[in-house]
Amino acid sequence: MTEQQILDWLRSTGIPACVGLKLGIGDDAAIFHAKPTEDLVFTTDLFIENVHFRGPDPPATIGRRALARSLSDIAAMGATPRFCLVSLAIAPWADIKWVKQFYRGLLRMAAETKVTLAGGDLSHADQLFCDVMVCGAVPKDKALRRNGAKPGDSIYVSGPLGGWKNKRVVTPRLDIGQMLLGKATACMDISDGLALDLRRLTIASGVAAELDSIPLLKGASVEQALHDGEDYELLYTVPPKVHVPGIRVGTIRKGKPGTLSYAGNPLQPRGYDHFQHRS
Amino acid sequence: MTEQQILDWLRSTGIPACVGLKLGIGDDAAIFHAKPTEDLVFTTDLFIENVHFRGPDPPATIGRRALARSLSDIAAMGATPRFCLVSLAIAPWADIKWVKQFYRGLLRMAAETKVTLAGGDLSHADQLFCDVMVCGAVPKDKALRRNGAKPGDSIYVSGPLGGWKNKRVVTPRLDIGQMLLGKATACMDISDGLALDLRRLTIASGVAAELDSIPLLKGASVEQALHDGEDYELLYTVPPKVHVPGIRVGTIRKGKPGTLSYAGNPLQPRGYDHFQHRS
Repeated sequence: MTEQQILDWLRSTGIPACVGLKLGIGDDAAIFHAKPTEDLVFTTDLFIENVHFRGPDPPATIGRRALARSLSDIAAMGATPRFCLVSLAIAPWADIKWVKQFYRGLLRMAAETKVTLAGGDLSHADQLFCDVMVCGAVPKDKALRRNGAKPGDSIYVSGPLGGWKNKRVVTPRLDIGQMLLGKATACMDISDGLALDLRRLTIASGVAAELDSIPLLKGASVEQALHDGEDYELLYTVPPKVHVPGIRVGTIRKGKPGTLSYAGNPLQPRGYDHFQHRS
Repeated sequence: MTEQQILDWLRSTGIPACVGLKLGIGDDAAIFHAKPTEDLVFTTDLFIENVHFRGPDPPATIGRRALARSLSDIAAMGATPRFCLVSLAIAPWADIKWVKQFYRGLLRMAAETKVTLAGGDLSHADQLFCDVMVCGAVPKDKALRRNGAKPGDSIYVSGPLGGWKNKRVVTPRLDIGQMLLGKATACMDISDGLALDLRRLTIASGVAAELDSIPLLKGASVEQALHDGEDYELLYTVPPKVHVPGIRVGTIRKGKPGTLSYAGNPLQPRGYDHFQHRS
């Protein structure tokens, strides 16, 4: 198969347009026009064989998760996803059937969340990998950041934690992210475990945090909920008396930025870091 | 080194802001606000060890070329680059010194072309690779596409061809692309050889093309100019009597879309295709 054949096949699948997209797949670049009332948010995530997935995993699941990871970042900004660019490097073991299944899984996730595949790149490599860039839109000046948490704010998560290995079907929390606009003081997605990501949020906000209860997925341990990566849930802070969806897990406190406690004891993050794993 | 240490080092290099960028490296996503008078263009390009470069190549050159490839696509749209997202997977053989040199080369190219590094992703892989997404801005409805060439248009290239292997320092033709706004009827960058890329342009435009002279870089053959990849020059078409910079190489004709001739003889593209190389 040639790159051209893959592109022709992709276009034949009938990719829907999205608001603002003036030109998608097939030129040197995609063309998009933003509304003056909106800001755009941009994120990109690598998804690599033997790092984030295994070759024998179902290709449609790999495609779905590759897009879901980036959508989770878009959710964390409170944004609505608009379009994506997908770079894919195909390994010798992956045939045309594999590639089509990969895109089918990715395009199904795209259809569910109204994201348009607007371009990307194709190449080959020994190890299969992809990189998915998603652009989303959010009302001007309203995007959720991770640096606004204040002492006294409640800490929430969007769902129970610790069971990502059982989650074959990942669903980014786009609906919850959008409901937090104008309410949450800080928000991010949990990609490296609650403890490490809460540490990042509190450092960015210059505050400390106390956790008092942690909602667990069926079969998960507190240890997994605190330190395992890739929950794809949102972590956010909200001023007292503001009502939001989700599960309350603790309180923001004054203190040395990044200091965490759980049930009154100091908590040390040891979440996943791609580079620490190498040493 | 951890991902956090690399991010901290990158921020310490003093990355300048660009027009419209409200938030760069360090949150779940970058935030950008577009002017209502402009369209945005988006492109992404993979750059893979043993496919696009060799591990022993100077890391600063690899970083520079990785960004230059995407900037060449931005040039082909007539756009001004604004910001980039860089995803990098580091191989075991690359140490922190290599990574810093890679980013130094990339950031030097970014400074020359006024592009802001606004985010990305970091991971590891057996084979080193990166994926560089660039967003550019262009006056509303004016972006150059590849589908507007008309019979009678002159065909131009932005410079002599065929010598990319000698080009250690790649310079994307952003200035020329911007000068073509409102003048060129079609434009694209030459990434897979003049013949194959002209074939793509003529297919997109529903026309044929006659080449009559091909400007060669010192030491290059016509064969190399027609069929070698990665010249990083622009290929564009212009109505008669419209003056543009560059070198005239032929004329657009009526005919079966994609039909090419050179000096009166039929011309068959056999440019680089990443997937044909595998078979």
